[in-house]
Formats: sequence, C-alpha cells, structure tokens
Amino acid sequence: MPLENLIARIGPLDEAALAAARARQDTLTKPRGSLGRLEALAVQLAGITGNPQPDFQHKVIVTMAGDHGVVAEGVSAYPQAVTPQMVVNFLRGGAAINVMARHVGARVVVVDMGVAAALEAHPSLVDKKIAPGTGNIARGPAMSREQAARALLAGAEVVESEMSRGLDILGTGDMGIGNTTPSAAIASALTGRPPAEIAGRGTGVDDAGLARKVAAVQRALAVNRPDPADALGVLARVGGFEIGGLAGAILAAAARRRPVVIDGFISTAAAMIAVGLAPQARPYLIAAHRSQERGHAIMLEWLGLDPLLDLDMRLGEGTGAALGISLAEVACKIVREMATFGEAGVSEADGG
Amino acid sequence: MPLENLIARIGPLDEAALAAARARQDTLTKPRGSLGRLEALAVQLAGITGNPQPDFQHKVIVTMAGDHGVVAEGVSAYPQAVTPQMVVNFLRGGAAINVMARHVGARVVVVDMGVAAALEAHPSLVDKKIAPGTGNIARGPAMSREQAARALLAGAEVVESEMSRGLDILGTGDMGIGNTTPSAAIASALTGRPPAEIAGRGTGVDDAGLARKVAAVQRALAVNRPDPADALGVLARVGGFEIGGLAGAILAAAARRRPVVIDGFISTAAAMIAVGLAPQARPYLIAAHRSQERGHAIMLEWLGLDPLLDLDMRLGEGTGAALGISLAEVACKIVREMATFGEAGVSEADGG
Repeated sequence: MPLENLIARIGPLDEAALAAARARQDTLTKPRGSLGRLEALAVQLAGITGNPQPDFQHKVIVTMAGDHGVVAEGVSAYPQAVTPQMVVNFLRGGAAINVMARHVGARVVVVDMGVAAALEAHPSLVDKKIAPGTGNIARGPAMSREQAARALLAGAEVVESEMSRGLDILGTGDMGIGNTTPSAAIASALTGRPPAEIAGRGTGVDDAGLARKVAAVQRALAVNRPDPADALGVLARVGGFEIGGLAGAILAAAARRRPVVIDGFISTAAAMIAVGLAPQARPYLIAAHRSQERGHAIMLEWLGLDPLLDLDMRLGEGTGAALGISLAEVACKIVREMATFGEAGVSEADGG
Repeated sequence: MPLENLIARIGPLDEAALAAARARQDTLTKPRGSLGRLEALAVQLAGITGNPQPDFQHKVIVTMAGDHGVVAEGVSAYPQAVTPQMVVNFLRGGAAINVMARHVGARVVVVDMGVAAALEAHPSLVDKKIAPGTGNIARGPAMSREQAARALLAGAEVVESEMSRGLDILGTGDMGIGNTTPSAAIASALTGRPPAEIAGRGTGVDDAGLARKVAAVQRALAVNRPDPADALGVLARVGGFEIGGLAGAILAAAARRRPVVIDGFISTAAAMIAVGLAPQARPYLIAAHRSQERGHAIMLEWLGLDPLLDLDMRLGEGTGAALGISLAEVACKIVREMATFGEAGVSEADGG
C-alpha cells in the first residue's frame, strides 16, 4: 500500500551531518552559541538534508484549500464563499501569503483539496479535489477512510511533482472557512484535552460563535469517537481534505529529506496527523510561530516543537511559514558565508 | 548648541498617517487583526515616516565600534585585539552582520568611534574616532562630558551623511570587547536596578568573570556617581564611544522621521541614553529582539518596548536589528501589496 511505502521511506536525521554542522558553528567568528536558536536550527537543517551546509535555492509554500460541512453549525465569522474567493486571490497574487512569499523568495503552490465550488482551471492551481467539502463533523464523519488515504497521497503527490521543479524546503499553508473547527477536533482527539481548551476564535467569531464552535467540537468527538491511536481514522472522522493533503505533503517532504516549516493552527493539526502516522517524521518539522489561536501552544507541546516566532498572528495561508523559511535560510547562510576564526585572523576566547 | 538643535527637531508621530494606516489595515483581504504585531508595526511605521504606506528602499545598519578601558578588570572572555580584528572582518564581509544584512538587503556602515588601535583606511570605514578607547570606568570616568557630546554628534553626522546615499530605515549595531560592562552600568544607573540583576555573561565569561563584571559595574557606579536625570553625564561617566555614537544616530534618525530598529543589549543602552536626552524619540524605536543577556528585558521595559523576536541571540553587531528590519519591511509590503476586499471581490465577515 503506497501510504505505508511513503512512511517507510522516512529515515532518521543524518548523524554525520549533524556532527559536522555542530563543529563548524564553533569555528565561525562569533562567540560560541551567540546566535542562539539560529545555530540549533542550522544544525537541525543539516541533519535533515544530510548536508552540513544546506543551501535553499527553491523555497516552496504549499497552500491547500478545502471546505467544511461543519460551517452549518455557525462556527465561522465568514461565509463559505470566501474559500474559493481567497483561492482566486492567491492565484492573482493579492493575498497576504503572496506578499510574504515574495518577500522571502518562496514559490506559492495553491492546491484545491476539496473546495465546495467549481474553481476555474488556472495554470497555477493544482486540482486534487477529493470532494466538494467534508461532511458536517458535528453530525457524522468528515470523510470516508478511503478518502482520507486519498487526501494524504494527493498531498504527497503535490510535493513529488514540485520536487521536479525544485523544492529544497517546504512551508505549509491552508485556506478553508471553518477549518479551525476540525483542527481543534483533531487536537482534542490526539491530546485528550477538552475542546474548550483548544478551540479559539478562528477568523474572529464573537462569544456566541465561540460557544457554538466548542459545542460543535464536543459533538464531533461524541458522534465520531476518533481513536487517538489511529491517526488516519482521526483524519477521516473529524478532519478535512486540506488537512489530510498537508499531512501527506509533510510525510513526502520528510521522505525526501526536505525540512518542513509548519505554519499555524491548521498546519499544526496536519503535522499531528503526519506524526501520528509516522513518528519518525517529527525531527523534520520546524514550528514557524505560535499562533494567537487558543490551543496552538498545547498542540506544539504535544509535537515537542518550540516555535521560532510569537507575533500574535492567526491568519494561516502559510504566512507564518514564510517568515520561518526566511529564518531557516539565514541560519544556513551564516554557516556557509561567515568567515572562520582562522580565515579572518580573529583571536579566539581566552576561556569561559 | 547643535545637540539641543538635534533634539528640538524630533517631533511627534504623524497622527493623520497613523489613522490612515489603521483604516487601510481593515480593508485588506484578511480577518481584522490576524497579522497581529505586523499590523501594529505597520501602523507605527506609518506614524514615524508620515506615509500611510511606507516603502523601505534603503535599509541601513550602522555598526559602531569602540574599546573600553574596563577590560583591564577582566570582564571579557576575548582579548581587546578582537575589536579591530572584527572591524576588518566587517569590512571584508565575513562577519555575521554581513551575512544577515545581505539576507535582508541592508547596507552595513562600519564606524570607528573609538577603537584602541590604528585602523587602516578603508573606503567602507567611517572614521569618527573620539579617542583610542575609554577610561576604565571602575576607576574613573569613561570620557569627558565634551567627548560624550562629540560622540553623540559624530553618530548624528553618520546618519546625516548616509541620508544622502539613501536611508529609509536604520538598524543599530555595535562591536567592542568589554562593552556589555558599560551598557550594564548605564542600565543600572538609569533604571536604579542593582548591577547583579543587569550584568550577564556577554561573549561568554565564566562564573568568576561574571563576578568580576558585576563588581566592576558596582565600582563604576560608586566611583562615578552618575545622575540618572543627566543622560549626557551618564554616557560620559560610565558609557562608551560607540554607545554615544549610536545614541546620536538614533536621535538623528528620529529627527529625520526614520524608524530605528534597536539591536540587543548595547544598542538598547544607547537607546536609553537617546531617550534620556529626548523622551520624544521613543516612538521612533522598534526593539528587534530580546537578547539572552541578563538585564536586557529590564532595559526594554524601562523603554516601554516589546521586542519582536526572542531567539536567544546575544551577538550584537546589528544581527538582531537585521531580522527586525526584515519584519518591518514585510509589514509595510503587506499594506502596499495586498488586495482589498473590494479589489479582490472577497466577502467580508458576517460579524464577530
């Protein structure tokens, strides 16, 4: 079965590259450890890529879109029509993710995983639609188990296809009105924490909307009874097509030894599905930022990830991932471009 | 007197530009407030520049170098010779600040404010040397009051001169073996907090070195008795030439309505001198990051600044400022380049 093959291809980080990267850090003309988390990040990226001095020529942000039957429960501040409208905005280059990706020199790949509208064909739109929106998780499963597996494999195919155009580092992004609700359900199912501690205001629901959302997640868990030991089942019962696609993309990138910069709340739910399926994918992940969305910190803790940024962002689309990619890139430029003590003729520390 | 003229030229932020920037944020195709601190940053930058949609074509990091007589007290892990060696490294492009400035598209301007060595002339080195190193603050004043005023004006001159080459946003940076010690003394003098809460390990002194450093700051305060109400006097008694130069650069940038991205511990000490001289300069400041150096958080709190990044960095040179400049730039690109709801035909929120 292809999903098992994909998972089997994900190996451990490269110990020799990790050691070489650590050793090189201490030869560079700066006090040891003085670049803090950028140094640790550069070492991780060496272990992921197998190259002590990684070079990210091709930075790719995959932004996956899908719709959610649970919007019928009044869980979002925006109408469902915004999902396809924003996909068009992405394709025209006018959304936040376009601006931020241009700023960091990344390519945005927009994927229709399950938008509940017919999208006009566009040379930059990848069509992997599994179905026009999920079922309402407050009343039944989001999708069948077979659809969940197809969503994962479709996400993996997107990464494989982008590899041929060049993909040295992957950022994840999402678009889908209502998708903080299935993400909260996944997080609650896998961490065991109550929905009220996980679900937040998403795009900006008021108190009544938040109460409806918490209730919808509670019902989703009661109706679907997802088994935390069965990540594919969690995705099928309370997930989303774009979440499944992102989980598959994460697995494919890890199998190809490409670092994956995880965006916010929805991408982190996808990462939890990916790690639930393949725990050995975890070291390939970099958490870009701590979202303002309630529960995100709990999810990052479950994954064992410490986010790089904390800027009160909660937009999704891959906007946090774009900033994280830029930090990953500069961490590696430091390693490649800085002079060593020997090269620069700079004296080393007396001790300490 | 020119210093008073410089201070008198610093005006309040532009209220009309602030209001226009706030209004524009809410027309862009994203949930209100969803870009968090980047939105607040874009508004501040509009108020600083007087332009609701600022455009930073010319990004400049001014890295000022100086030496410190207090190294005689054994306060640093590195020998004093490293200051001129690192200046040469900056001029050759091999230091961390060079790599990070290239990454964010900023120009690095290296200034000799008071290096205790004769530096070879170089087309990229600005010579503003006040004297070859300060006095040992543990035994007497760092410099005369007249030298302190000259250092401030020399720093202002650097900014004025760079304005003619193009300077739309300024980042501050420093180099000077031993300069966390005068920075801690400035912070202790102005905040009233004891040296043991402020002084940290700098480039990496061991426990004995840290004890010597705390004792040196205590003696510097006891011997020099700086008056916290007299910022120029604080600079003269326990400061440094590069710290004075940076304070002057900050004042000149504020007078020219240019945003100033403050780097770490030393740059923040300089910002405290600048704000001590001209409290109205404070809104022009952006704190790039929270340094790992002990006491930095106390200094930022005294300034009322909330740092953008927290990456355990403690290198100086302007490395944190480079990352902060990139965030300031993308915050403004968001405002200039994103589509509005009207332009993109995206539905707005139902409520919430």
